[in-house]
Amino acid sequence: MNRKVKIVGMGSYLPKRLIESTEIDKMIGAESGWSEKKSGVKQRYFVSDETATYMGAKAANKAVENAGLCLSDIDCIISASGTNEQAIPCNASLIQKHLGLQSSGIPCFDVNSTCLSFVSALDMVSYAVDAGKYEKVLIVSSEISSVGLNWKQRESSILFGDGAVAVVLSAANNTSKILSSHMETYSEGAHLSEIRGGGTKLHPRIYSEQTAEEFLFDMDGRAIFKLSYKLLPDFLDRLFKGTGLTIADINMVIPHQASASAMKIIRKKLGVKEERFMNIIDRYGNMIAASIPLALHEAVIQGRIKRGDTILLLGTSAGLSIGGILLEY
Amino acid sequence: MNRKVKIVGMGSYLPKRLIESTEIDKMIGAESGWSEKKSGVKQRYFVSDETATYMGAKAANKAVENAGLCLSDIDCIISASGTNEQAIPCNASLIQKHLGLQSSGIPCFDVNSTCLSFVSALDMVSYAVDAGKYEKVLIVSSEISSVGLNWKQRESSILFGDGAVAVVLSAANNTSKILSSHMETYSEGAHLSEIRGGGTKLHPRIYSEQTAEEFLFDMDGRAIFKLSYKLLPDFLDRLFKGTGLTIADINMVIPHQASASAMKIIRKKLGVKEERFMNIIDRYGNMIAASIPLALHEAVIQGRIKRGDTILLLGTSAGLSIGGILLEY
Repeated sequence: MNRKVKIVGMGSYLPKRLIESTEIDKMIGAESGWSEKKSGVKQRYFVSDETATYMGAKAANKAVENAGLCLSDIDCIISASGTNEQAIPCNASLIQKHLGLQSSGIPCFDVNSTCLSFVSALDMVSYAVDAGKYEKVLIVSSEISSVGLNWKQRESSILFGDGAVAVVLSAANNTSKILSSHMETYSEGAHLSEIRGGGTKLHPRIYSEQTAEEFLFDMDGRAIFKLSYKLLPDFLDRLFKGTGLTIADINMVIPHQASASAMKIIRKKLGVKEERFMNIIDRYGNMIAASIPLALHEAVIQGRIKRGDTILLLGTSAGLSIGGILLEY
Repeated sequence: MNRKVKIVGMGSYLPKRLIESTEIDKMIGAESGWSEKKSGVKQRYFVSDETATYMGAKAANKAVENAGLCLSDIDCIISASGTNEQAIPCNASLIQKHLGLQSSGIPCFDVNSTCLSFVSALDMVSYAVDAGKYEKVLIVSSEISSVGLNWKQRESSILFGDGAVAVVLSAANNTSKILSSHMETYSEGAHLSEIRGGGTKLHPRIYSEQTAEEFLFDMDGRAIFKLSYKLLPDFLDRLFKGTGLTIADINMVIPHQASASAMKIIRKKLGVKEERFMNIIDRYGNMIAASIPLALHEAVIQGRIKRGDTILLLGTSAGLSIGGILLEY
């Protein structure tokens, strides 16, 4: 179902601190080169003094400028992140404050489907924009993964990076639209990637040396990949259904940057050549919900996407969910 | 802007453990009767062994049954809560699992604007339902406040309760619709009610006796009320604009159950009589995002709302946000 919306601006913020994979190798006591070989991540950024909503606001300012707009043109702010800065209130309000919009009244709320949060937020709000409720929506994905990594669980911890990406979504006329969107959640995989603690089930007050790992990321990458890979073909059929398009019509696939090895297999499964498949994991790692919009932003910056191109946003997330959007950029 | 949607079923789950206010008085070392007099809350429910997503699933089952539907009729599950069960994944996936829908593929994501989460989720998804994307959406607000209360901060801690409410939203034909919705966020009040810890800014690993209060709810009720009260008249003007309605046309106001005293003043400011203003705080306390749908559910159960009535959902939330929906039930 078409929605007349257009991504009119994008911006990102990367933490000041760049971490090479060799530094990670030292930290985890691995041979130099091991983590890059294993994950495909050469480098990533980790926050030092930055907070998630500070980064989100920095990215948002750039996105609004990139769109040729002013902050006063924005009429809705959505934080679309898999991690929260505080337990209460939602990230979007804190981003509004960093933007100096504390007296603006611009509505703020969060959408969360972990790594698919950006895709879910873009999908949901596109209906409201198409219906005329909002004209210029700021969608901000800002993630700090580094604070929650379990360095004893090497396979997952070596994958992630921090950073923020913001997108301005506008009502559109004839060109630019969402052509189709689809999401499927299979909670049989809900506990394949999780942080069990930190919420109401395991409150921080139970934190101790013994419970520490309950508050860190825990992932069974192999099981996630197996389930996702099995789900992919039928999922794609349902996403493409009624559009008259096939994967051959896609100018650029923007996948979630889950892991280099998974992305390689998915690309081959899709039957898409490297030049039509954005892969930026070597420089940023997996940035949770910020990965898809960052890859999209990079594709535009590098001139690999132009207006009118047909784009596929595609990813999996903790939940376990698989989601995608087909759009005319 | 009208959206043809209809609330076709509702259900709730209250924890097994009922807590009288006299018990709270003992706990905080207050004179018997003090907390009820101060908060207007006679009793509330606190979880013992229940988790948020377990309660959410219990409420969801009842809502689906109340709608005369089966779980297989549901095509989207949204968790609309101000609190999370785990840091990752989102609540909606965990609710899907408790419902036995782990292999269903029904899309799951969370919407969070603290106490207004239900209102935000209902508003956002109504555009997608109206456009034909979803037919039967389950919106679940399940909150556990008790684990995060600061009993040293009496004024806030005596207000809250736990519990879950679920609503089935359906595409509608001629009757039942959303007539208008509006939300405003003023982050100048972002730190007037918050839990600073538990997210990426203050990770649970810094939890200690000294930092304990960073992980508990902190509220300046007086300042929140002052700001909300100032914002209310202009907010209402904007919510009602274009509907041709005034507050006199509203059959029932369903307010967020913030506190008995605040609700009384708001009711008088609106110029609405008690019989047209749902007040259930004495029996449940403030149940965060579950308060508005619970008050709506009670209004229907008590026969105080019938099909075709014009209803105003109205509330404030941490952020600070003020939000509302005008709907024909």
